[in-house]
Amino acid sequence: MSDLRTIWWKDGVAVTFDQTKLPSDKVFLEMKECSDAASAIREMRVRGAPLIGVTAAYGLALAAYHSKAEKRDEMMKEINESAEVLRRSRPTAVNLFWAIDRVLKRARTVSGNTETLAKAVLDEAQKMADEDVEANRRMGEYGAKLIREEEVVLTHCNAGSLATVDYGTALGVIRAAWNQGKKISVIATETRPKLQGARLTTYELKRDGIPVTLITDSMVGYVMSKRLVDKVIVGADRIVQDAVINKIGTYTIAVLAQEHKVPFYVAAPRSTFNLKQTSEDVTIEERSSEEVTHFRSQRIAPSGIKALNPAFDITPLKYVEAVICESGVLSTSELERLTADYGTRA
Amino acid sequence: MSDLRTIWWKDGVAVTFDQTKLPSDKVFLEMKECSDAASAIREMRVRGAPLIGVTAAYGLALAAYHSKAEKRDEMMKEINESAEVLRRSRPTAVNLFWAIDRVLKRARTVSGNTETLAKAVLDEAQKMADEDVEANRRMGEYGAKLIREEEVVLTHCNAGSLATVDYGTALGVIRAAWNQGKKISVIATETRPKLQGARLTTYELKRDGIPVTLITDSMVGYVMSKRLVDKVIVGADRIVQDAVINKIGTYTIAVLAQEHKVPFYVAAPRSTFNLKQTSEDVTIEERSSEEVTHFRSQRIAPSGIKALNPAFDITPLKYVEAVICESGVLSTSELERLTADYGTRA
Repeated sequence: MSDLRTIWWKDGVAVTFDQTKLPSDKVFLEMKECSDAASAIREMRVRGAPLIGVTAAYGLALAAYHSKAEKRDEMMKEINESAEVLRRSRPTAVNLFWAIDRVLKRARTVSGNTETLAKAVLDEAQKMADEDVEANRRMGEYGAKLIREEEVVLTHCNAGSLATVDYGTALGVIRAAWNQGKKISVIATETRPKLQGARLTTYELKRDGIPVTLITDSMVGYVMSKRLVDKVIVGADRIVQDAVINKIGTYTIAVLAQEHKVPFYVAAPRSTFNLKQTSEDVTIEERSSEEVTHFRSQRIAPSGIKALNPAFDITPLKYVEAVICESGVLSTSELERLTADYGTRA
Repeated sequence: MSDLRTIWWKDGVAVTFDQTKLPSDKVFLEMKECSDAASAIREMRVRGAPLIGVTAAYGLALAAYHSKAEKRDEMMKEINESAEVLRRSRPTAVNLFWAIDRVLKRARTVSGNTETLAKAVLDEAQKMADEDVEANRRMGEYGAKLIREEEVVLTHCNAGSLATVDYGTALGVIRAAWNQGKKISVIATETRPKLQGARLTTYELKRDGIPVTLITDSMVGYVMSKRLVDKVIVGADRIVQDAVINKIGTYTIAVLAQEHKVPFYVAAPRSTFNLKQTSEDVTIEERSSEEVTHFRSQRIAPSGIKALNPAFDITPLKYVEAVICESGVLSTSELERLTADYGTRA
């Protein structure tokens, strides 16, 4: 493991840490009610598709655990209301909706009183957290086989322990290769506007002693043209029939990777897949333009300047070499076969 | 004109303003001796290939004007020494070397005493400043014909008044189209690490009332995939036989433009051309990694993290639709013909 577990339950509180404060400060964040979890997701104090999902599950656990409801129906109503609040926190990462649906399903199917119900909801959240770590570990094993001795892997944003419950998706693969003794190194893009690459990916890799070089997003073409990159591995916020939705900047990297014949891999658990959808069904979150016109609290652009701030972009599958998940390394044709299976079952 | 002249001579002082302070403060910078000009270039208080060239010319004028030499040879020796200091300020923009060589040539060929020599050096600097504005104005006229009503032009870094003596190269073309009454708009990339797009391009366009939307460098693929961009126009720090050397991030944009069939134009005066060279002859300046690991004085990455910081990248001509210069719009085959002419004359 990476020894960097991001979320756990302690005496009725879900504890995480505020990722907006990293790497300079490690500030613990105690989420005491469901709205704390929703705020933490919305304000990106927790981020990364898998961690967003598990945080939402713990949010429902907080709602149930601290409920004063005396009747099961009443508690179920509260849990459903909390689910609605969580659903509105961020629109793009599919793990959020997947996690909420899964906890609600468990809640609906468990029999017994309010105590049993609250316990079932918390159990499900814990189970999902543990499963996430296990999925990442397996993803790491499968993915590490793709990485050769001394290769340089470029990654974008943070798809590490800090984006998951532990170990990470893209960084999980890198970690697994490193732990096998392969002398690899990483190029991390800083990932404007929120700098998850500069702040979080470098922080994780430094802890593990994995060599990392930071670049600005504008240097991706440069490092590829200099043949400094052997592979690209990124995470995903949602994988649909025809595309991968991930942090803004991913598509730019994918096009450059194709131009330079650098294989582009996506590492993501099955909870990130929604093969019933196409990219046309996806809402790309547009965040405040101040994240672009300001740097932390300092204004960088003149006042009154308009800015775009889509949090994600869409990478068509034709740019993707394969998707690494807990079931193995899926080529895009295997993904298409999975999609067809969904169609048959629907 | 843009009413934003960047450099002028007043009573033995070359006045510019400190572009590192823009857009929040407009701080005038009085350069009193040649070393002030060299520092201003090195510290990027003035930047942009054409302005770097003219600043160097004024640097030599300062050396001559304030010289205490009584003999012509002595003054010439001082001017040559100053030229060496200026040559070491920044390695990539060819206008720097072109300007120094041109002033030295004028100095060598003028006859007369020290007073005549000093006057000739200053005259040459003034002439180059005026010629730069005139070249930009003509570039604007030629380039504006390429831009159609209501088009959206993406530009990178700052190739405006602030990169030249006035009017600008890429922004000169945009200005000319706007002044012809075309209702165009601009997408400006922020241009990490020094944020010339966010700080300077938006500042200039806002002054002129030209609509501008700021994006991070990571959003270039996104805006192109959404078909929000009709043309790309950037400046250049050096144009060689096979490539355009410009601000880091330019190559990334060029590859994306080609992938989306968006024409990619370069606007640059002939003083930026060095068709005797190929891209293999070009030194790409590597600046301090702190420009990447820090934001102004705030650290963003953990301590000890390595970062790359090439100030420029190389865009092969195959990605370039045409080069807009003061002699017209040159297709890449016309550029190749020019190159062949150089070969014949050499």
